[in-house]
Amino acid sequence: MDGISFIKMHGLGNDFVIVDGRSSPVEINEPLAQAIANRRTGVGCDQLIVLEPSSAADAFMRIWNPDGSESGACGNATRCVGALLIAGKRRNTVTIETLAGVLTASTAPDGFITVDMGEPSLAWEQIPLARAMDTLHVDYRHSSGLQDPVAVNMGNPHAVFFVPDAEAVDVEAIGPAIETDPLFPERTNVSFVSRKADGSLRLVVWERGAGRTLACGTASCAAVVAATRRGLIDRKAAIWMDGGRLDLEWRADDNHVIMTGPIAVSFSGVIALPPRVEAA
Amino acid sequence: MDGISFIKMHGLGNDFVIVDGRSSPVEINEPLAQAIANRRTGVGCDQLIVLEPSSAADAFMRIWNPDGSESGACGNATRCVGALLIAGKRRNTVTIETLAGVLTASTAPDGFITVDMGEPSLAWEQIPLARAMDTLHVDYRHSSGLQDPVAVNMGNPHAVFFVPDAEAVDVEAIGPAIETDPLFPERTNVSFVSRKADGSLRLVVWERGAGRTLACGTASCAAVVAATRRGLIDRKAAIWMDGGRLDLEWRADDNHVIMTGPIAVSFSGVIALPPRVEAA
Repeated sequence: MDGISFIKMHGLGNDFVIVDGRSSPVEINEPLAQAIANRRTGVGCDQLIVLEPSSAADAFMRIWNPDGSESGACGNATRCVGALLIAGKRRNTVTIETLAGVLTASTAPDGFITVDMGEPSLAWEQIPLARAMDTLHVDYRHSSGLQDPVAVNMGNPHAVFFVPDAEAVDVEAIGPAIETDPLFPERTNVSFVSRKADGSLRLVVWERGAGRTLACGTASCAAVVAATRRGLIDRKAAIWMDGGRLDLEWRADDNHVIMTGPIAVSFSGVIALPPRVEAA
Repeated sequence: MDGISFIKMHGLGNDFVIVDGRSSPVEINEPLAQAIANRRTGVGCDQLIVLEPSSAADAFMRIWNPDGSESGACGNATRCVGALLIAGKRRNTVTIETLAGVLTASTAPDGFITVDMGEPSLAWEQIPLARAMDTLHVDYRHSSGLQDPVAVNMGNPHAVFFVPDAEAVDVEAIGPAIETDPLFPERTNVSFVSRKADGSLRLVVWERGAGRTLACGTASCAAVVAATRRGLIDRKAAIWMDGGRLDLEWRADDNHVIMTGPIAVSFSGVIALPPRVEAA
């Protein structure tokens, strides 16, 4: 079948359609991204990933949200793309260029993939926020009483709320309001984090442009940074999301955030363009 | 990539993973059906369809629900499978064996597919209901006040409620309670139908084992039968579901239900078993 070839992968249930446009370009636009991401009539995914040639890394990774917008970074997708490139290059380490910079992915025990997600940006104009303030205590209060988030940019903006019980938050009701609040001129991902007795973190995330997802890699990065800045952890934590566990470290020596976790291939496929019925 | 090859199709957004096991058998079991139907970590579908050899028709169509149960009939899938077989056999008409009998699919204008869904079963023990009663006025009342459905079996059981406004029903709240009521010993599909001013029907459906779907072919068959029996239409109707329109006729001369509507191929694919990362 002629059309767009892809691989469907996921990291903790955070799922991606990955199209390799390195050797021959693949034209994606907003309506096509929306059509591919549709879970009934398209392929279905949290994000559509297109690999493109890069002069700075082994590949450039373009990230499309289901609403047709582009995202600068996606941690779980970076692990999945890293696994593909590592298999293809027959190396233990590869580099991936994104809108947010060049990231490094490498093999880890148990088939896991580690990604160096680089340095967080913590200045208010880097988040960005609409006005000057301390990103450790953002001057925001939601009508539900949720307030005082930490703001972190991990290639995309994050607002991290520390709450007694992340699972008790009505994410679908509150997430969209915070995502689109004028305080965040480029909208924001929204995380709800609670610290468990064993020192690990429970994270529930509302993704900008994608809604509630089972896991979000950059949100786990933002959570380890925010929790460290608030003095809740000592730079390292296991982070439990709906889809499972990631291990995070905000490394002291170079300020980089290091994320390790599983990836899986669900299937490979070809999108028929135009859609048609072939002989069976 | 080795694994299970499939085609993903949909009729009005009612979507199917179709696996061709005619020439070499494909072993599906309950957990594998559940895994394939998962929209995050599998392929994702309303039903998994497996084609098997048939001595009575061009193919046998086995229907797996996302919960791992089997279904006897699926009208939209029958149109999709019909389109595949028509393309493969280079004929305008093919036959498809199901647990509910042999169905005939044929080409229609505009690339649509017509399926002869056979005769409805209207006796209480054929639905089945738990006790003897008139299926034109089933003795059932839900706590919300919904009552007096028509029961029809179209290869699978349907309870059809006529309401002033099908779109106003809280389907997610009410559907599961009716589906699993002891009056329906094999559970039931649940339809909410309202007649529009132009004589067409609006149908919202809760599918047994699958939940709310964008469209359900056998529910549209049950609706045309039920509405005819209640004197609301004269054997023919356009039926509007969330995913679009089907044209239905309960034919007077042979008592068969005839369904016509669109189909589409979304993509083809191969499920990696076991899942693994190949060189990219």
